[in-house]
Amino acid sequence: MKKKIKQIDVKPDENIKKLISDMDNTGFGAKRLARACKIYEKMVKTKNCKKFFALAGAMVPVGMQRVIHDMLDLGFIDVLVTTGANLTHDVVETLGLNHLQGNIAKIETNDVKLYDERMNRIYDVFMPNQVYESMEDFIIEHLNNNFDKNMSVKEFLWLLGEKLPNHPHSILKVCSEKRIPIFCPAFTDSGLAMQVHFSNNNLNLNHFSDLNEMINYAWDAEIAGVCIVGGGVPKNYIFQAMQFSPNQASFAIQVTMDRPEPGGLSGAEIREAISWGKINKNAEYSTVIADATIILPLLLSYLKTTCL
Amino acid sequence: MKKKIKQIDVKPDENIKKLISDMDNTGFGAKRLARACKIYEKMVKTKNCKKFFALAGAMVPVGMQRVIHDMLDLGFIDVLVTTGANLTHDVVETLGLNHLQGNIAKIETNDVKLYDERMNRIYDVFMPNQVYESMEDFIIEHLNNNFDKNMSVKEFLWLLGEKLPNHPHSILKVCSEKRIPIFCPAFTDSGLAMQVHFSNNNLNLNHFSDLNEMINYAWDAEIAGVCIVGGGVPKNYIFQAMQFSPNQASFAIQVTMDRPEPGGLSGAEIREAISWGKINKNAEYSTVIADATIILPLLLSYLKTTCL
Amino acid sequence: MKKKIKQIDVKPDENIKKLISDMDNTGFGAKRLARACKIYEKMVKTKNCKKFFALAGAMVPVGMQRVIHDMLDLGFIDVLVTTGANLTHDVVETLGLNHLQGNIAKIETNDVKLYDERMNRIYDVFMPNQVYESMEDFIIEHLNNNFDKNMSVKEFLWLLGEKLPNHPHSILKVCSEKRIPIFCPAFTDSGLAMQVHFSNNNLNLNHFSDLNEMINYAWDAEIAGVCIVGGGVPKNYIFQAMQFSPNQASFAIQVTMDRPEPGGLSGAEIREAISWGKINKNAEYSTVIADATIILPLLLSYLKTTCL
Amino acid sequence: MKKKIKQIDVKPDENIKKLISDMDNTGFGAKRLARACKIYEKMVKTKNCKKFFALAGAMVPVGMQRVIHDMLDLGFIDVLVTTGANLTHDVVETLGLNHLQGNIAKIETNDVKLYDERMNRIYDVFMPNQVYESMEDFIIEHLNNNFDKNMSVKEFLWLLGEKLPNHPHSILKVCSEKRIPIFCPAFTDSGLAMQVHFSNNNLNLNHFSDLNEMINYAWDAEIAGVCIVGGGVPKNYIFQAMQFSPNQASFAIQVTMDRPEPGGLSGAEIREAISWGKINKNAEYSTVIADATIILPLLLSYLKTTCL
Repeated sequence: MKKKIKQIDVKPDENIKKLISDMDNTGFGAKRLARACKIYEKMVKTKNCKKFFALAGAMVPVGMQRVIHDMLDLGFIDVLVTTGANLTHDVVETLGLNHLQGNIAKIETNDVKLYDERMNRIYDVFMPNQVYESMEDFIIEHLNNNFDKNMSVKEFLWLLGEKLPNHPHSILKVCSEKRIPIFCPAFTDSGLAMQVHFSNNNLNLNHFSDLNEMINYAWDAEIAGVCIVGGGVPKNYIFQAMQFSPNQASFAIQVTMDRPEPGGLSGAEIREAISWGKINKNAEYSTVIADATIILPLLLSYLKTTCL
Repeated sequence: MKKKIKQIDVKPDENIKKLISDMDNTGFGAKRLARACKIYEKMVKTKNCKKFFALAGAMVPVGMQRVIHDMLDLGFIDVLVTTGANLTHDVVETLGLNHLQGNIAKIETNDVKLYDERMNRIYDVFMPNQVYESMEDFIIEHLNNNFDKNMSVKEFLWLLGEKLPNHPHSILKVCSEKRIPIFCPAFTDSGLAMQVHFSNNNLNLNHFSDLNEMINYAWDAEIAGVCIVGGGVPKNYIFQAMQFSPNQASFAIQVTMDRPEPGGLSGAEIREAISWGKINKNAEYSTVIADATIILPLLLSYLKTTCL
Repeated sequence: MKKKIKQIDVKPDENIKKLISDMDNTGFGAKRLARACKIYEKMVKTKNCKKFFALAGAMVPVGMQRVIHDMLDLGFIDVLVTTGANLTHDVVETLGLNHLQGNIAKIETNDVKLYDERMNRIYDVFMPNQVYESMEDFIIEHLNNNFDKNMSVKEFLWLLGEKLPNHPHSILKVCSEKRIPIFCPAFTDSGLAMQVHFSNNNLNLNHFSDLNEMINYAWDAEIAGVCIVGGGVPKNYIFQAMQFSPNQASFAIQVTMDRPEPGGLSGAEIREAISWGKINKNAEYSTVIADATIILPLLLSYLKTTCL
Repeated sequence: MKKKIKQIDVKPDENIKKLISDMDNTGFGAKRLARACKIYEKMVKTKNCKKFFALAGAMVPVGMQRVIHDMLDLGFIDVLVTTGANLTHDVVETLGLNHLQGNIAKIETNDVKLYDERMNRIYDVFMPNQVYESMEDFIIEHLNNNFDKNMSVKEFLWLLGEKLPNHPHSILKVCSEKRIPIFCPAFTDSGLAMQVHFSNNNLNLNHFSDLNEMINYAWDAEIAGVCIVGGGVPKNYIFQAMQFSPNQASFAIQVTMDRPEPGGLSGAEIREAISWGKINKNAEYSTVIADATIILPLLLSYLKTTCL
C-alpha cells in the first residue's frame, strides 16, 4: 500500500537560521545557500521591492505545494510564473486527490507494471491516472460555458481558483483570493489545459494579454527581485520582462541542478543575464546548485524566522 | 574582432557510420549514442512512422540551425515543437544577421562589459542587441496588420516563414515551404513574440487550436517516433500528445545533460513515460547524456549515410 | 581583504530533526536526505555496527573540518578513509594557518592574478601558497628521521597527529588521540606526502600493511555501515573491503553530485555494489544527490539531536 | 546470453577530422571538443612536448582499452597515470577473459539477481566474478616470490606486463614493452592489488619511489602537455607534478562529466590550476563536458588523421 505524499509544513527556527547564516563563512554550495537566503531576506525587507517567482519542476506533486502556498500567503511572492504541470497537480491536491510515494530504496521501478496499474510516475512520486476523471468532472461542472473564452490565462487561473473548493494550502486558491498575479505562458502544455480544452471547444485564452500585463508589472517595479526554482519557461518569462523594468532586477537567486556549459537557459548563470540588461550590474545574486526539495523548506524556514 | 558562428554543415560518411555502429558493442554513453542513431534510422525507414521532434536549448545561435534544417528538408522530421528562443534566433540568422563566438579559452567573460557593448551572452555565444532593431523593422514591414489575428501559432509561424527572405538553411522557411507543422506552445515567452506583440496590439494567436492540431497528429499516427533535444516544454508537448496516439510512441530518443533524480521532466528517463501511456511498453528507446552540439552532427551524418 | 573560512559548528536542534523527518513523506532529494539521516541514525544505534566513512572532496578547506572532527569525536565514525588533500588541509588548519573565502558574487575570478599573488584556488576557497613553508618547517622539525620508515600510512598518520599541536577540531589529532583508524590509500598523491618525501628520502610507508588492516576491520565487522562523501578512492577502498565483511555492508549512504550514466565509481548507485557482494542485498541505503557542504551540517545536527 | 564488450577499433578519417574542425566555428560542447582535439594535435606535433595522460573511470571494461593502447603505441602518451581498477580490468582482458554487455534498453537491472549469478555490474557493463580465479592463478604462477618486494609500483607494473601473455591491445603489455612509465598512486585500492597481496604477504611496493620518478619526469619536461580523462587521483598526481615542471603545463585538455561548483578536483576547471602554478598562464586548454566513451574514439580518429 503506497503512502500519500504529505505537503511539508515548515516552521521558523532560530537554529536553522543560525546554521544557514554560519554557512556564509564557508564556500561551495553552503555559502551559495547562505547568500541566497540573505538575498531573499533583503528582497522581503526592501520597501517596494516586487518579488517575481519562477516555479518549474514537479514541486507540487513532490510535497512543496504548502511551501509555495505559504510564501504566497505571507507576501514573499508578488508575481508567480509557473508550469501547467504544477497547476495540474495543484488542482489534483486541492480537489482532495493524492500523490503517492514510490520507494527509492527498492531496487527497481517497473514502468510497465505501473502502466498496467494506471499509475503515472514522476521519478519516485506516483499519481493515479484516475485523478483525471475527477478533474474532468470538476471542470465540466464548474468551468464549462459560463465564462469569457477570450480572457487571459491569468484571469482564467483566478477564475479556476475561485471555483476550487476551500483548501489550506492550494496555490491557485491563494492566488485567486489574494489576487496575486499568476502566469503560465505554456498553459496548453498541460493535462489541465487539455481537460479544459476538451470541455470548451471555442476556448482561446489570450496569451498576449498575459504578456502585456507581465511586462507592465516589470515596468512598474522600481525595485525588482527574482527567485527561480528550476528554470525553463518560467525563468525566461520573468527574465525577458526584467528588460523592461526601470532598474532591471536588483536581486536574483536560483535553485537548479542544471549546468551552464551546454548553453541551455535553465543552467545559465545569473550573471549572464547582466549582459542582456535583465539583471542590474550591481545586483546581488546567488545560484544554489541543489535539489529544490531540500532548499525550499530551508529557505522558507529562514524567511519565517527573519521576516515575520 | 569576434568571429561569426558558422552553421555546421554535415556530410554522410561511412567511417562515421562505422565508428558509431561499433560503439554499440561497448557501454555507457557510446552505446547509448549508437542505439539512438539506430533507433532514429529505424524511425526513418519504418513506413508510416510519424517523427515528432522536440527542440529546446539554444541550438540555432550555437550553429545547429543547418542540422535541424537538413533534418526537416530530408524528411527526417514530420512535426517540430520548439521554443520561442530558437525561432527568434532563426529569424535573426534568416535576416542575415549573425551570432558571434565568445572565447572559451579566455579566463573570464565580463558580463558588465558585454552589457556596455550591448552584446547579449548565451554561454560562449554572443548576439548583438541591435539585431532586435532589424527584426522590428522586418515585422513592422511584413507582419503588421494584414493577417488574421486569431490564427493558430503554427499558422502564424508558416506566415512568418513565407515573409522571410530566401535562405539556404532557415528552419522557419523550410517548415513554411514544405508545410511541416511547427509548434511553439510557449510562443509568448520569446523576443520574437514581444516584437510581434508590440506591432500588433490586438493579436490573440489561438494556442488551443495548436493543441487540437497537435493531438490530431498524434491521433493519426499509427506508428510514432520521438526525438527530444533538451527537454522542457517541447518534450512535454509531444509526450502529452502521445497519450492520444493509437499505439503511443514506438521509438524514442533523447539528448540531454539534465539528470533524473531531482524529478524535472527534462532529465526524466524515457521509460518513465511508459507508466503514463505516452511511450509504448515495447518501444525502443535511448537517452544520450551529452551536449547536443556534439551529438546532433554525428546523428545527422549517420542518418545521411544510412537513409539517403 | 579576504575573510577566513570558519569551520562550521553544528548544534542539535529538534526543529531541524523534525524538518528532515518530515522530508521522508515527500520525494526526490528531500526524501533521500531524510532516509540517509535515518539510516545513519540506525548505524549509530545498532550495537556492534562498525561505521566506515569515506571522505573525498575539499571538505576541510571549505569549512567541514569541525563537522568531521565531531563525528569522529562522538563515535559516529569508526574507520576513516580519506584523500591526501584533506589531510594536507587538516595539517594547515591545525598549524593555525588559514583558508580564505573567494567571492562567488564577483563576476570573475582571475587565476592569473591569483597565481601572481601566490594564492591557490579551490573553486571559491583560497589557500595562500606560503602555508607550504610552515608545513615544511613543521615536518623538518617533527618528522625528520626519528621514525620507522616502513610503517603503514595509518601508523604514520597517527604519529603525525601526535606531533601536531593541540587544536579543538583537528581530524588527524582526534584520530591519533582516540586511535581511530585513518586510511589514505593514495597518500603520495598530496602536498603533505611530497613535503614528507622531500624531508625523508628513504621513506617507504607500507601501503599493503594498511590494506591488510583495512580488510581485517571489515572481516571483524559483523554489522557494517558505510557513509560516502564524494566518491573516488575512499569509496572504492571501503567497498572493496566490504567484500570480506561476513555480512557485507548492511547500511550505506552516499552524498555526491556525480551521476551514474558515465560509469565512474563516484557516481555509481549504491545498489550496483550489491551485485559485487559489497552491499548486502537486504541493506538499507540512500544516495543524496547534493553538495556535501549543505548536507553534512544537516546530517550532523540530526545525529546530535537523535543519538546523544 | 550476454554479448561480449568489443574493444573499439578507431580508424583515421578525413570527414571525422573535418566535422570536428568545423565544430570550432560553433560554441558550447562542440567547440570545446574541436579545441581539445586541436590542442592534443599540437601536443603531438610540438617537439619535445612530454604528454602526460590521466585515465580514471571504467574505461577498459567499457571498451576503450584499445583506444588507450593505440595512443600509447603511437606515441601520443609519454606518461600514463591510472587507477587500479583500469589495471585490474586490463589484466582481465589480456588474460583473454571478458567483460559483457548489459542491456540499457531493459527496464530494470536487478542487482540482487546479478549477485546470485556472480555477475559484477559497472553501470551497463558486467564482469563475471569468476575472472578473479583466473587472475589469482596467473598471479600465483607468475608473480609469487621471484621479484624484489620493494620495487616501485611502476617497476612492478612493467614486470606484470612482461609476464602477461601477448595481446594485441593490452595497456600493461605495451607500457612494459615500450618502457612507457605507468603510475598508479592508489594501487592498493584495486582487486589486482588485493590478489597480489594475498600471494605476497611481505610485499611493500615503494610508492615514494614512484612519486620521485614522476616529479623527475615533470622536472625534465621543458614543454609539458596534459590530457585528463575523468579526474580523481590520476588528475591530481599529474597536476601536483606539474608544479615542478620548468614551464608548468603548456597544454591541457580534460574530458569529464563532473561539475566545478561542489569544489571537487574532478570537476574543477583547468584554469583553476593556473593559480597553483600547475598550468602555465599562457597555456592552451579545453575541458569537454562529455562521456569519455564518446569523446575518446573521436579524439583518436582525429589524431590518427592529423598526426600520422
